Amino acid sequence: MLLTIAPLAGIVSILTATYLFYYVNKQGTGTKKMREIADAIKEGSRAFLKRQYQTLTLFTLAMAVILAFLLGINIALTFIIGSLCSALAGFIGMEIAVRANVRTAYAAEKGINKAFPIAFYAGAVMGLLVVGFALLGISILYFIYADPNIILGFSFGASMIALFAKAGGGIYTKTADIGADLVGKVEMNFPEDDPRNPAVIADNVGDNVGDVAGTGADLFDSYVGSIVATMILGSETIGPLGVTLPLIIAGVGIIASILGTAAVRVGEGGNAGAALNRGTFLTTIIFAIITYGIVTFMELSMNIYYSIIVGLIAGVGIGLTSDYFTSIDRGPVKKTAEASKTGTAITILTGFSYGIMSVVPPVIGISIAILISWYVEGVYGVALAALGMLSITGMIVSSDSYGPIVDNAAGIAEQSGMEAKIIEVTNELDAAGNTAKAITKGFAIGAAALTVLALFTAYSKIVNITALDLMNPLVLVGMFIGSIMPPLFSALMILSVGKNAFRMIEEIRRQFREIPGLIEGKAKPDYAKCVDIATKGALKELVLPSILTITTPLLVGFILGSKALGGFLAGSIITGVIFALFMSNSGGTWDNAKKYIEAGHFGGKGSEAHKAAIVGDTVGDPFKDTAGPSINTMITVMSLTASVFAPIIIKYALL
Amino acid sequence: MLLTIAPLAGIVSILTATYLFYYVNKQGTGTKKMREIADAIKEGSRAFLKRQYQTLTLFTLAMAVILAFLLGINIALTFIIGSLCSALAGFIGMEIAVRANVRTAYAAEKGINKAFPIAFYAGAVMGLLVVGFALLGISILYFIYADPNIILGFSFGASMIALFAKAGGGIYTKTADIGADLVGKVEMNFPEDDPRNPAVIADNVGDNVGDVAGTGADLFDSYVGSIVATMILGSETIGPLGVTLPLIIAGVGIIASILGTAAVRVGEGGNAGAALNRGTFLTTIIFAIITYGIVTFMELSMNIYYSIIVGLIAGVGIGLTSDYFTSIDRGPVKKTAEASKTGTAITILTGFSYGIMSVVPPVIGISIAILISWYVEGVYGVALAALGMLSITGMIVSSDSYGPIVDNAAGIAEQSGMEAKIIEVTNELDAAGNTAKAITKGFAIGAAALTVLALFTAYSKIVNITALDLMNPLVLVGMFIGSIMPPLFSALMILSVGKNAFRMIEEIRRQFREIPGLIEGKAKPDYAKCVDIATKGALKELVLPSILTITTPLLVGFILGSKALGGFLAGSIITGVIFALFMSNSGGTWDNAKKYIEAGHFGGKGSEAHKAAIVGDTVGDPFKDTAGPSINTMITVMSLTASVFAPIIIKYALL
Repeated sequence: MLLTIAPLAGIVSILTATYLFYYVNKQGTGTKKMREIADAIKEGSRAFLKRQYQTLTLFTLAMAVILAFLLGINIALTFIIGSLCSALAGFIGMEIAVRANVRTAYAAEKGINKAFPIAFYAGAVMGLLVVGFALLGISILYFIYADPNIILGFSFGASMIALFAKAGGGIYTKTADIGADLVGKVEMNFPEDDPRNPAVIADNVGDNVGDVAGTGADLFDSYVGSIVATMILGSETIGPLGVTLPLIIAGVGIIASILGTAAVRVGEGGNAGAALNRGTFLTTIIFAIITYGIVTFMELSMNIYYSIIVGLIAGVGIGLTSDYFTSIDRGPVKKTAEASKTGTAITILTGFSYGIMSVVPPVIGISIAILISWYVEGVYGVALAALGMLSITGMIVSSDSYGPIVDNAAGIAEQSGMEAKIIEVTNELDAAGNTAKAITKGFAIGAAALTVLALFTAYSKIVNITALDLMNPLVLVGMFIGSIMPPLFSALMILSVGKNAFRMIEEIRRQFREIPGLIEGKAKPDYAKCVDIATKGALKELVLPSILTITTPLLVGFILGSKALGGFLAGSIITGVIFALFMSNSGGTWDNAKKYIEAGHFGGKGSEAHKAAIVGDTVGDPFKDTAGPSINTMITVMSLTASVFAPIIIKYALL
Repeated sequence: MLLTIAPLAGIVSILTATYLFYYVNKQGTGTKKMREIADAIKEGSRAFLKRQYQTLTLFTLAMAVILAFLLGINIALTFIIGSLCSALAGFIGMEIAVRANVRTAYAAEKGINKAFPIAFYAGAVMGLLVVGFALLGISILYFIYADPNIILGFSFGASMIALFAKAGGGIYTKTADIGADLVGKVEMNFPEDDPRNPAVIADNVGDNVGDVAGTGADLFDSYVGSIVATMILGSETIGPLGVTLPLIIAGVGIIASILGTAAVRVGEGGNAGAALNRGTFLTTIIFAIITYGIVTFMELSMNIYYSIIVGLIAGVGIGLTSDYFTSIDRGPVKKTAEASKTGTAITILTGFSYGIMSVVPPVIGISIAILISWYVEGVYGVALAALGMLSITGMIVSSDSYGPIVDNAAGIAEQSGMEAKIIEVTNELDAAGNTAKAITKGFAIGAAALTVLALFTAYSKIVNITALDLMNPLVLVGMFIGSIMPPLFSALMILSVGKNAFRMIEEIRRQFREIPGLIEGKAKPDYAKCVDIATKGALKELVLPSILTITTPLLVGFILGSKALGGFLAGSIITGVIFALFMSNSGGTWDNAKKYIEAGHFGGKGSEAHKAAIVGDTVGDPFKDTAGPSINTMITVMSLTASVFAPIIIKYALL
């Protein structure tokens, strides 16, 4: 009976999202000028998604054929359904984001309390669709197949989409951002979002494709992964109840997220950032309380409850640590800003070091969560901790997607030449987005880490390994190879951004040179050309890292065997967590160090310190928005590839 | 009978070094001006070493008391002897380096073929003393105790000295270098090594304390570690022969190194870099041949030979990879230089990415070496591979120590206002040092990696762990915590350099501001003040990272137990290798990208690209000369701490 909570929560979530979609969509769209800009962003975003989905369709079908051939038609089917659900959530989420931006900017005229709900509810559309589609999809598939190993295909499909969406979107957004900044802001001394900058639309498009669609797909992926891993481990350790419990818990999480979302409100002159974080904390508390009720009602062991809660606490804790290391009024950012006085090199070195130091508390947090959950409930406990952490995904994605929407709104307000007072409101909304982002990004990485750990354990159950001995050379070598994968992936992503930004910079410089009157603002730049460069480049550069991500675990598995593959996964989790957190947080620290100087410290705007801080911020851009957060997805895809192909790896491995 | 090869080789090595010491020392010391500069460098270097050794004496005695109390007097004694041997090699090696620099500069007047041998033989003093003291020390202790577990104390002592020498020296050298560069070269537009620059002597001192004494201690540490680990594993797996064999092999390595050293010659107008690398290759071949003879003569299994050779090949291979990624005429450096056209941020991102990519081939090389050696000869095979790699340490340290000596020589030539033709000769010698350095640095890291692996295996034998299961939460958590240690250590080191450079920069600026006539070259700067700042700062900043390195493995061991400590070591090896190689190679890439531009590409000196490349180089400085190469020592110290304290950890661990 309680099991119906899962599909019901999924349906309620989708219905709520639909309602919010219409609520946002019926808001006013502002002046003709605003609509023009918004339309350009919308077209660019759609064009990218269309092209990306075309590539993905081919890829998904090819992979589905391979899966059908090697592992049976059912896995292939669930794989396709997983891809579709994730893509659909991404598509609708981005559709509402590109509508909400202009509506938020227009509503900003009437004050922050009018503009905020538009942006936040649009974000909530994405948040609720992600968890809704995911849980409904899993519930239906479980109803049909009653076998979590087949639902693994669903997770694999979602993960594949996430890899492309997050990595492709990440390359896109930073190509455009760096190009726009380096030529527009540094060389030409234009302000941010200046309409004369040819890359400005591409930059706004990037926020949508990278941060809305990309992050949504990323958390879809972790969310599904944690549920499926828990189901598999549950069936192996405590039988049928172990399989259905994760669905029930996830359902509770959705209900908590909807209630939490409803509570996010900003009064006149209110603090938007505080409202978002309040939503997150409220969701956490509601979830903890209902789950307690359920566990008591079902007469389950309290150990199950402790496992879930310890994961939840670790997730929030990791988010808060990221916040500390990247917050504008804390030591790390201030010291990085101060280092800018000594010049660029020390700025880079300082931000880099704090980024690395920021990994220490989360690693300790994850370690404690592992130890406690494992001791009270074994491997199933670790999976439950991951599930507990991800239970509030709906709320997390809602406040995360809010960020790029208000960022876009600020851009539209600037480009359409709105009054200073209104621009101030949009900037205030934007700042709140950045505060929320620090927490949600740390959360996403922590969640991915625990999910991948759960998947890693699930893998070992699937291949029936009872021990992964580090004294076994194959395990050790697998671990060495696995550990180099996340850093290698980051390096490839960063080089891609560099290469693509190079093309973008050449194009922007060409337009300034060749379009007469552009610099004076008398002629319009060729926005579409920049959008095109970012799109083509992102999709092209995506190929190598994606192929590496999928083929390396297969190569390791088929050549060195299933134990080496287990070591491989362990190695990739370790360095994956380190690089993901270090890169995201370094980037955030540099970003806010720049903002701290812009707020008037150490010489303020235009000073030498400011110039150094701008370089730091630019180095941090692909760290925090391309490489860092893509690693989550990358390690999830590798774990799922291992688990999905496990049955044939055992059969055909060379060693 | 064959066993006498070890002490004999040690004695021959020390005698050869003594002979070379007197050969170098009797060369002419040039003009009064040259001697003045050289004396300032000598005094600064001695002052640093004196202060460092004072600190170390206290620390060593305190640790010896703890060891005597907890583990018996013998371990404490061997610990002290190990510290002394390493410190003595470092002291004498540096003494000859600070004499050879001015003599090399003076001989440069008579051509490269006269100057080269002075610098190289001075380097060889360090190289031969390192292996001589190490092997003689171990041989004598083995003769007395006949128990490799007690000789572990010798290794621990050497390792402790190495940690202080490498980390302290690394902070010192980059404090001075960055300070001198940022104020002298960037702000004042002075050339390198300009005598008006107050930090110029400190910069030259830094080369000696960081690169000569530091690197010597580092390789002393790895060398001893690999021999002792092989002895321990030998006694556990194949009995007495397994214990004596490593001593014989190491003796052969010393003979090969002496012969290789003798073959390093440069004719008139010859290529010094090629001569150094020829020496390395020759040593490798001689070693391989003699070892073959010994293995055949002793009628040992050829598997033993294969294990040794596979390590040797991997070591050279890793060196060559580092060379590829940091060589001025290869893709990575050229592309990084090209990226400088787009500005500083992309330069940083590109060098960073290539640095990470450079880790891939060594990791594959190490993996292959592990697999082959393990399959033919089990854990003992892996230890033999490490030993094989380190057998040519004498030659490696010789060509590595050559680098800072000729760097100093070039500085002295510049500061004493020698003719352009002579300066050109010293610069040519210097360039050869940089070529050799790329290979030796990669080699040192690869060697440390295999040594630590051998130590890790030795640890598991000591605590009698038969399996380190990754499915055990304690092992997994240990691994998580261990993996964060090397990055954390790097971050602390880099922050230390940043902080210390900050003080140095303030002081240099003060001198330019307050000493009248300094800028015009009419007054002398206060060199001693800068030397003092670098010295005090380095020793102060060293404390936290050193304490962390020693206490964390103990905390993990005593709280989470010996299995968690095993996981901890495995985790630290994995990220240790990645961070050490990535940081060293990124730094090398940036360094040479700058030089590539200075050679006239992409606008040459003074261009915007050049400015960007200088920032890249400065970021790379602490990467490649402080943090990166200190990680070797750090992971060795952690492994040895674990092994030495293992007996009481087993008894008193909490979990």
